[in-house]
Amino acid sequence: MEKPYVIGIDIGGTNTVFGVVDARGTILYSGSIKTGHYDDINDYVKALGDGLQNVINSAGGKDKIKGIGVGAPNGNYFNGCIEFAPNLPWKGKIPLAQMISDQTGGIPVTLTNDANAAAIGEMTYGAARGLKDFIVITLGTGVGSGIVIGGNLVYGHDGFAGELGHVIVRRENGRLCGCGRHGCLEAYASATGVARTACELLMTRTEESLLRELEPDKITSKDVYDAAVKGDKLSQEIFETTGAILGEAFADFVAFSSPEAIILFGGLTKAGQLLMEPVKRSMEAHMLKVFQNKTRLLFSQLKESDAAVLGASALGWEVKEEL
Amino acid sequence: MEKPYVIGIDIGGTNTVFGVVDARGTILYSGSIKTGHYDDINDYVKALGDGLQNVINSAGGKDKIKGIGVGAPNGNYFNGCIEFAPNLPWKGKIPLAQMISDQTGGIPVTLTNDANAAAIGEMTYGAARGLKDFIVITLGTGVGSGIVIGGNLVYGHDGFAGELGHVIVRRENGRLCGCGRHGCLEAYASATGVARTACELLMTRTEESLLRELEPDKITSKDVYDAAVKGDKLSQEIFETTGAILGEAFADFVAFSSPEAIILFGGLTKAGQLLMEPVKRSMEAHMLKVFQNKTRLLFSQLKESDAAVLGASALGWEVKEEL
Repeated sequence: MEKPYVIGIDIGGTNTVFGVVDARGTILYSGSIKTGHYDDINDYVKALGDGLQNVINSAGGKDKIKGIGVGAPNGNYFNGCIEFAPNLPWKGKIPLAQMISDQTGGIPVTLTNDANAAAIGEMTYGAARGLKDFIVITLGTGVGSGIVIGGNLVYGHDGFAGELGHVIVRRENGRLCGCGRHGCLEAYASATGVARTACELLMTRTEESLLRELEPDKITSKDVYDAAVKGDKLSQEIFETTGAILGEAFADFVAFSSPEAIILFGGLTKAGQLLMEPVKRSMEAHMLKVFQNKTRLLFSQLKESDAAVLGASALGWEVKEEL
Repeated sequence: MEKPYVIGIDIGGTNTVFGVVDARGTILYSGSIKTGHYDDINDYVKALGDGLQNVINSAGGKDKIKGIGVGAPNGNYFNGCIEFAPNLPWKGKIPLAQMISDQTGGIPVTLTNDANAAAIGEMTYGAARGLKDFIVITLGTGVGSGIVIGGNLVYGHDGFAGELGHVIVRRENGRLCGCGRHGCLEAYASATGVARTACELLMTRTEESLLRELEPDKITSKDVYDAAVKGDKLSQEIFETTGAILGEAFADFVAFSSPEAIILFGGLTKAGQLLMEPVKRSMEAHMLKVFQNKTRLLFSQLKESDAAVLGASALGWEVKEEL
């Protein structure tokens, strides 16, 4: 009998969340541990193994589990390692897929970065079901991407393809990005980028704004959203500007792979049409003629609280190809 | 017995060149007709059919021909049509693959644009033999690209993917491009772009240059090359500037698909290291850290006079998949 479940593990800097998932994308049993509590990777894997054992038992034992998928920052699909992840406690190259497989008595484990996991999640359970050519853009603290071409995730020759948060959208006087370069999309279109745009506009402009009641350094993208919904013009302009830059970048992405859809995923998508509408307008305005009005813009259809675990779990259905 | 030959047809605005090619990439028999002489597509296909019949007879008859590949501007792989090609005499959507197949008694015909044909040519006979992930950039009158990921050419959902000449490299005060937008890579890194850079530098600068002996409007990229080789500093700077912009763009392309190699193809590559050296320097300087010093820059290995026909012919080895 075909094994009916997979496990998804989402590793973040603060929490590691995991769950047993069925073929329809329902999370049946779940758990979590604190990533940051384990300075030694061996202690972490042991604690994770204990947590996994609980949900595996609830699901009826490991014979019910087809595979485990892991979404992790700097995760390399080709070798199953986390490589030099700046926001995780462990240094260097960690063969995490192998370690988790060993800890769970040999369940096959596949690992990739969180944005790629999101793309596979959308294809398996979400907005990209039935699509062969699409790009998922994750808009959170940073900007990430998972690119699917001809039904396959693009890993590139080294496993690190799809860093669309780090294409350059402003070559002159571009903002400093966390990667050390200037003008990256991530420096403008992430939650942090929105907050930076807010600070800049508050400093360079004089009109009234609800945002002026807050300490500039502590403004978050949520504050900007709340103010925009209340009709604050400056806050609406911040989403307009952010959307315009995203749209410019998307027009270039379309010139690369001509996807059927671009799917927006992650915290910033809570802004809804406040963000989507200017993205769409800007993307079409900047598009090469041959591509105009062909590429759909969609929101993720994965329930936000579950999205990361679902995305990772979708990898568990893949039988990893030998290279 | 496996059929031993394919035919490549390269359709340009001026000439249509074709040839019978063997598995090693040797052109055995070739011919050409004047594209511009035929305002009616039916007359063109008939004349082309006569020319093809000659080379097919020389090769021992049509049973020796496995397939015909066509490289044409605005050629759509999915439907075998040339669609609204601005530099060809025929308007609208022309089902050329079907027409050529009918004219040659049913030989299967596959069609794509010229840059995609170049990429398949490099993979079959040239610098990309054995590579699964690479990008060919064609530097001619315009800038085109053929993108290969996981051993497959990227066509996108509509057949038009890979328009990397039209990503935006200068968002502020960008040059007007032939596509009607501003700041495209093609406006800077094509042969025409090099000539425009020459004009600009001659106008805005005062130092001596061999180029000042020429009429500014008539300077070609070859003039710039000839002067640069003779030690002309301004001409060397033009290649430096062109290479720098190409390198910036390449760093973004690598963030997308992380290719093992980027292969330069076309007329402008005659500039050799004058162009390659600044491209490489700029690409590495602008690269996201994770990709640094991983992607090779190569020149095409197809003999220039044969490259277009070879590239197109390589499609003839493909059995077109049903969609």
